[in-house]
Amino acid sequence: MSKNKVKIIPLGGAGEIGKNMLVVECRDDIVVIDAGLKFPNEEMLGIDFIIPDISYLLERKDRVRGIVITHGHEDHIGALPYILPELKVPVYSTRLTNGIIKVKLKERGLLHDTDLHCVEPGDVLSFGSIEVVFFRVNHSIPDAVGLIMNTPAGLIVHTGDFKFDKTPIEAPPTDFDQLVNLGLSNVVALFCDCVRVELHGSTPSERIVGDTFDAVMSDATGRVIITTFASNISRIQQAIYTAHNHGRKVAIIGRSLESNVNVAIDLGFLVVPDDTLISLAQAKNLRNDQVVFITTGSQGEPTSVLSRIATNDHKQIRLVPGDTVIISATPVPGNEETVSRTIDNLFRLGAKVVYDAIMTVHVSGHASRDELKLMLQLVQPQYCIPLHGEYRHMVLFREMAGEAGIAPEQVLLAEVGDILEFNQGSGRIARRVQVGSVLVDGVMVGEVARVVLRDRQHLSRDGVVIVVVALDRQSGELVSGPDIVSRGFVYMREADELIEKAKENVRRAIVSRNGSELEYGFAVQKIKESLGKFIFDKTRRRPMILTVVTEI
Amino acid sequence: MSKNKVKIIPLGGAGEIGKNMLVVECRDDIVVIDAGLKFPNEEMLGIDFIIPDISYLLERKDRVRGIVITHGHEDHIGALPYILPELKVPVYSTRLTNGIIKVKLKERGLLHDTDLHCVEPGDVLSFGSIEVVFFRVNHSIPDAVGLIMNTPAGLIVHTGDFKFDKTPIEAPPTDFDQLVNLGLSNVVALFCDCVRVELHGSTPSERIVGDTFDAVMSDATGRVIITTFASNISRIQQAIYTAHNHGRKVAIIGRSLESNVNVAIDLGFLVVPDDTLISLAQAKNLRNDQVVFITTGSQGEPTSVLSRIATNDHKQIRLVPGDTVIISATPVPGNEETVSRTIDNLFRLGAKVVYDAIMTVHVSGHASRDELKLMLQLVQPQYCIPLHGEYRHMVLFREMAGEAGIAPEQVLLAEVGDILEFNQGSGRIARRVQVGSVLVDGVMVGEVARVVLRDRQHLSRDGVVIVVVALDRQSGELVSGPDIVSRGFVYMREADELIEKAKENVRRAIVSRNGSELEYGFAVQKIKESLGKFIFDKTRRRPMILTVVTEI
Repeated sequence: MSKNKVKIIPLGGAGEIGKNMLVVECRDDIVVIDAGLKFPNEEMLGIDFIIPDISYLLERKDRVRGIVITHGHEDHIGALPYILPELKVPVYSTRLTNGIIKVKLKERGLLHDTDLHCVEPGDVLSFGSIEVVFFRVNHSIPDAVGLIMNTPAGLIVHTGDFKFDKTPIEAPPTDFDQLVNLGLSNVVALFCDCVRVELHGSTPSERIVGDTFDAVMSDATGRVIITTFASNISRIQQAIYTAHNHGRKVAIIGRSLESNVNVAIDLGFLVVPDDTLISLAQAKNLRNDQVVFITTGSQGEPTSVLSRIATNDHKQIRLVPGDTVIISATPVPGNEETVSRTIDNLFRLGAKVVYDAIMTVHVSGHASRDELKLMLQLVQPQYCIPLHGEYRHMVLFREMAGEAGIAPEQVLLAEVGDILEFNQGSGRIARRVQVGSVLVDGVMVGEVARVVLRDRQHLSRDGVVIVVVALDRQSGELVSGPDIVSRGFVYMREADELIEKAKENVRRAIVSRNGSELEYGFAVQKIKESLGKFIFDKTRRRPMILTVVTEI
Repeated sequence: MSKNKVKIIPLGGAGEIGKNMLVVECRDDIVVIDAGLKFPNEEMLGIDFIIPDISYLLERKDRVRGIVITHGHEDHIGALPYILPELKVPVYSTRLTNGIIKVKLKERGLLHDTDLHCVEPGDVLSFGSIEVVFFRVNHSIPDAVGLIMNTPAGLIVHTGDFKFDKTPIEAPPTDFDQLVNLGLSNVVALFCDCVRVELHGSTPSERIVGDTFDAVMSDATGRVIITTFASNISRIQQAIYTAHNHGRKVAIIGRSLESNVNVAIDLGFLVVPDDTLISLAQAKNLRNDQVVFITTGSQGEPTSVLSRIATNDHKQIRLVPGDTVIISATPVPGNEETVSRTIDNLFRLGAKVVYDAIMTVHVSGHASRDELKLMLQLVQPQYCIPLHGEYRHMVLFREMAGEAGIAPEQVLLAEVGDILEFNQGSGRIARRVQVGSVLVDGVMVGEVARVVLRDRQHLSRDGVVIVVVALDRQSGELVSGPDIVSRGFVYMREADELIEKAKENVRRAIVSRNGSELEYGFAVQKIKESLGKFIFDKTRRRPMILTVVTEI
């Protein structure tokens, strides 16, 4: 490949939009940006999550110089424990991100075998032909960065996940000087967060959620329970400050929350006034109006602290009237129902519940349309590549970019596996890399076959009916059975008659075989067809039918 | 029971908030209001829908005077085909509602055996001690009504699903005089739609969606495809008028839409300018900018017209760049993912897609907070019972009612099965009726046992592993097998080694039984435990394990 050509390939689940990993390749050097996981859609039954297919990297292992991480969210770091054992390369990230990665790797016993490096915004790393500069961005987790890559094809900028928060909680606001300088420097390509492009105007500052916390605590006569994403340290910071201002103590409850809070305190990203943090046991000795709990469960996850409180299933916390619960998050797509049920359950127990339909309990960490335009006008890139959203967001990004003076042909819509090539000031989608979906299900990592998922869907709709018969190897006559077992189909104790008739149906199917036809596959097929038809006629359902024929 | 006492019982799925049916009982008379169905939540795998448990009515069959329907939406009429064969009573509804019910019953061959009656707003029906007056309300389907019931316990008002649309499309606006008269008449109880109580202000008029249609058709250079709820005749009316104004012809595509449109035209609820409606075949002879399609699929239903268009799977319609699709609906909770995927697919095919995040393509048919307050202030009821929403909506309704001058103890939060009693101006929740959930799954109507749903959930997560062994009846030794079959667990062709080891595990489990212990149940249990542990250790998954032991 040409000396000055740079290839960039988004990786992720096949057919996805490639938000979870980006491969940057030039000459003999490959730098990987982020290594995130994606949560499965509702059809991927039983799948825990999806990680990028890294076959492309494994085939070029000796050229991978390192993984650069933009921030500490699961969709940017979650695949590291699966990828690092295969791809033993250094990982570079800012201090808080590094702290969170360490916790994650330690939990899985992988910490000793990895090579983690801390960087600061402004730092410059050189990976052969690719030089990477980190710049601070504001997002819903502190210490997030974007990247400026100096390559033989020119400057390539990656915004990371960002918004322009003019009044962020801890981090300084965006360094506009740096972005303006970029605008003067002829940037070839801007990879840009596009997930909120549907929203007009600007995303409000994180700070306004603190106003809601303040208003709620001013009114609350009992305990205040706040749930948010475990990684949203700025939100937790605001909860702690507000509690302190109202003379309340704070207990952090929930494993992921506790580890993130500990890391953030250790590294100075979370400032806690003296004696403000207490244990759950200590909280019991205080009056209700002196207590704030911060808990996991903002997505209604069934095993989270808040879900257990909401179903009266938490060992130590029982809701009482007077308690106020703040759901300081919006449901991630797919979680609407569980969140809604949690809210209903909390109301049932007599709590006051403050959630997104009622007050401003959450603001996004992503830039809205006006901020995206500002980014484009500051950086003035030759090409734009929308990142992070679904297909519709990419199309709307192209439309929005048009309003900011960037022509449609300057916006490249890349999906997972597409190879973006930049060379001497021109860019294009060249061809595609073959990528599959790597689904993680228990400890099985790899291609969970589509047929397995299809079977799970079938099983989930109508259950399974199993027919077992033993046939004489010589005569083909029925020696034992038919036994019929079903699960997820009908409640068998109440379906005696149906099952008896089904057995009769199987017996007839066996007898009506051509007498001389003893072939195993034929018997199986015959039973399956006959029973399937019988069951559908009687019930209008199509359970999966499995036939096991034993020849004796 | 006391001569002047009225009992009102919401029926529906157990644990639900009772929006689908209301039983009104006084002396020897029972009137049923609505007979709707509810769509299952995501945990009710394979369930088509839920209908009210009518055991209470069946036990008092001879006292049920009739079913009164407020409007023609599925959640108010959908259970009729299941209930009418059991409870042969007359059904009373306005003309359009009656037309829609007829279509539904005809499809199921039930029309001949039912007793349907048409009423007009203002009509008075007498059911012994209960007199019912119909009054017009505005909702997202024409010819919707609320009910005023004159009972020995006083006036009881039921709003139906409503909003105050000051500029409705076809129906006259609300008859405020009638409501004001009610306010002067000492209404004992108001049963009130509460589903939009989270929203401040008023719900916008249906008419503003017409402005969006107009704006989109002004810009569109190709075909315009509009999808909406099949029952939203006012929306369809606006689409047809706007198309006509822009010199476009309209083809209606999709079975449910076609039958509703035909009924509405026949009954005069949909006015179509001459030569405006055309067939799909005729549309092919027109230029793209002369065509509007109105299709089913606003909820991303996989078999709907729009979903098939979006996946390039529709026999007659292929999207081309220049086509515009308007999703004139918002996703019903639970359908967010399928709708979102449909939008992405449409964008992928090059269409312009106009959906709720982009423009006002839909307004609700339910009253927001200010309208609810207006209703309370007009009717001035002694007691209020929020209907139709989830638990949180009922709690917020009580809070809202407080702002409108109604004390918390005047608001009764009733769930399915609660008996509301009104007597001599006082009201309370007295006790509960035993109700179950009636789940409809294929043609099986009735109590789908919880264990069946739990099994489906289990199967959907990790699949099923079936072990079949034949043992000698005398010695207990293995005669044949073990055979292992799995579905939805691992792709068996790629898991030879795992399956072989699992068989070995089963063989050992059989041998290690106490030699003399031949009991069937013991062998089954032993195999299940041993294999379950083996599989979990190897895969961290817990498929359902079914063991069939044949004794020969």
